[in-house]
Amino acid sequence: MNFSTQHELIELELIKIANDCGNHSLYEPVKYILSLGGKRLRPTLTLIGCELYGAPAERAIKAAAAFEVFHNFTLMHDDIMDKAPLRRGRPSVHQKWNANQAILSGDAMFVISVQLIAQTEASVMPIVLGLFNRTALEVCEGQDLDMAFETREHVSVEEYIKMIRLKTSVLVAACLSSGAIIAGASSEEAKGLYSFGENLGIAFQLRDDYLDTFGDATKIGKQSGGDILADKKTFLLIRALEKADENSQNKIKSMFGNTSINADTKVNIIKAIFLENAVDQELVALEDLYYNRAIEALNKLEINEKGKNILKNFAKQLMERDH
Amino acid sequence: MNFSTQHELIELELIKIANDCGNHSLYEPVKYILSLGGKRLRPTLTLIGCELYGAPAERAIKAAAAFEVFHNFTLMHDDIMDKAPLRRGRPSVHQKWNANQAILSGDAMFVISVQLIAQTEASVMPIVLGLFNRTALEVCEGQDLDMAFETREHVSVEEYIKMIRLKTSVLVAACLSSGAIIAGASSEEAKGLYSFGENLGIAFQLRDDYLDTFGDATKIGKQSGGDILADKKTFLLIRALEKADENSQNKIKSMFGNTSINADTKVNIIKAIFLENAVDQELVALEDLYYNRAIEALNKLEINEKGKNILKNFAKQLMERDH
Repeated sequence: MNFSTQHELIELELIKIANDCGNHSLYEPVKYILSLGGKRLRPTLTLIGCELYGAPAERAIKAAAAFEVFHNFTLMHDDIMDKAPLRRGRPSVHQKWNANQAILSGDAMFVISVQLIAQTEASVMPIVLGLFNRTALEVCEGQDLDMAFETREHVSVEEYIKMIRLKTSVLVAACLSSGAIIAGASSEEAKGLYSFGENLGIAFQLRDDYLDTFGDATKIGKQSGGDILADKKTFLLIRALEKADENSQNKIKSMFGNTSINADTKVNIIKAIFLENAVDQELVALEDLYYNRAIEALNKLEINEKGKNILKNFAKQLMERDH
Repeated sequence: MNFSTQHELIELELIKIANDCGNHSLYEPVKYILSLGGKRLRPTLTLIGCELYGAPAERAIKAAAAFEVFHNFTLMHDDIMDKAPLRRGRPSVHQKWNANQAILSGDAMFVISVQLIAQTEASVMPIVLGLFNRTALEVCEGQDLDMAFETREHVSVEEYIKMIRLKTSVLVAACLSSGAIIAGASSEEAKGLYSFGENLGIAFQLRDDYLDTFGDATKIGKQSGGDILADKKTFLLIRALEKADENSQNKIKSMFGNTSINADTKVNIIKAIFLENAVDQELVALEDLYYNRAIEALNKLEINEKGKNILKNFAKQLMERDH
C-alpha cells in the first residue's frame, strides 16, 4: 500500500471528472472546488479499505471519487448556509459566483457523485449505492441538527455527539466500508470497518474542535477561535455552560451574538473559562474514548497485522495532527 | 389502463414516502411539498410507459415516485433561485421556512429520489439509474441556461428551445422511457418513446408559455402575464424583439426591470405588440411542429393501436388544456 500512489490515483481521477464535465457554465464551480485540493481523506480511506481486502486500489477509484465529489458538494451548500466567505483559503463558490450558482452547481455535483457510484462493478454496485444513499441522508440530517443548534439555548453532549456522528463520521465510515465491499469483504468485515470509521470520525471531529480553539493559528490556516466567535455549540461550549459558575456562564451568554466586542477579547475570555473548568481535558478524554473504541473495532477485524498497522498508523496521524 | 387507478397508486406511494421519512425536521418541507398535489404528470407517464409494454403499473411505481420526488426537489430549489413566494397557491418552502432549509431539505429530497430508483428491479436498475442521472444533469443544465438568459440581452429561438428541452422535456421523455425499460421493452422502443416524450415536452412547455400570456387568469390559477412582468425571454418575447419595428422594440426594452410602471399597463402594451407581430401564431405553429414530431415518433412504435391511442389522447389532452 502506497499513499503517494493512492493520492496520485485520486488526483488523476478528479482531473478526469473535471474534464468530462464539458464547457457548460454549470460546471465551472465544480471544477473550481475540486481544484482547491484538501487532504482527500475520504477517497484515500476508500482505497485503503479496498486494498486491505486484497483488491487493487483501482477497483475502488470510482467510488472513492464519488465520496470526494459528494463531500465537496456538501461543502458548497454548507458554505452558503453558513455564509462562509472562504474555503481552503480561497473564495467560496457562492462568494466567487453567487448563491444561486452554488445551489445549482452543487446539485449537479451531487448527480455526478451518483454517476460515479453507478460505475462501481455491477455485482456490488447496488450495495455500495445503498450505503452511499443512506449516508448522504444522514449527512443532511447532521447539517440540519447543526443549523438547529444555532438557535437553541441548550444542547446536550449526547445531542452534540449525535450531530457530529451524522455530519462527519458516518461518511468516514462509509468510505472505508465501501472500499472493503468493493474488494469482496464479507458483510461482517465491512461492518467492523464501518464501526472503526464511525468512532474514528467522532474522535477526528472532536480533535478539529480542539484545534479550532487551542490550535496554532499559523498551522490551522485560519483564525484560532473561529467556533467561539461564531457561538458554535461545540463540546467545549456545551460543557462550559454546564460546569462553570453562574458568573462565568453569564459572561459567556452576554457575548453571544455580540458583534461590538473585540474578537480577541471574546476568544481570550471564553478560552480562559474553558481552561478554568478543564473542559479541554474532558474533550481530550472523550477523544480518547472514541479513538479507543475505533482501535477495539479494528482489532476484531480478520485482516493481518500489517493491514491493522496501516489503519492504526493512519488513525494515529489523524489524531496527532496539529492542523 | 385506468388513469384513476394510476393516480391512486401514485398518491399512496407518495404518502408512504412521506411516512417513511420519520420525524426529523429535515423532512418537514419534503412532506409539505409532496402534499401540495399537482398533476402528477411525470409519474403517470412512467406508469403508462410500463403498462404499454405489458407489465403491471406496480412494477414501475418506485421509479415513477422517484421522478415525482426529483421534480419536486427541482421546484424547491428553483423557487429559491427565482425568489418565488408561492408554489401551487401556497407559500413556497423557502418562504414558509427559510432558504437554508429549502436548500438542505431539497438535497435530502434528491437523495430520496435516488433511493427510490435503487429499488427498481435489479435487472434493469442500472439502466434506469443511468437514464435518471443523465436526465438530472440535463435538468440542471437547463436551469443554468434559464438563469443565464435573465442577464443576457439577446437569446435566439434555437437557444430557447435548447433550454426548455433540457429544463422540461428530457424529464418527460425519461419518465416515459423508464416505464418501458422496466416493463422489458427493447432499447429501440425505449428510444422511440423517449423521442415522443421529448417532442411532446417541448410542445407542452410552449403551450405553458402561451397560457401564461394569453390564458384566462381564473383558470391558470395565477396572474396572467407573469412571464411578461418577469421580463422572461420566452419564445414570444424573443420573436417580438426580432420582428417588431424599432419603436415597439424600444417600448419593450424601456419596460425591462422597470418596477414603477403599472403591471396591467406593461402586460397590455407588450401583449399588443405580440399580437401586432403575430408571434402568438408563430408560437402555435411551433407547438404544432413539435406535437407532430411527437406523433411521428409514436406511430413508429411497435405497440398496438389501442396503446397508441392512449398516448395520443394523453398528448391531446395536454395540448388542449386551458391551465
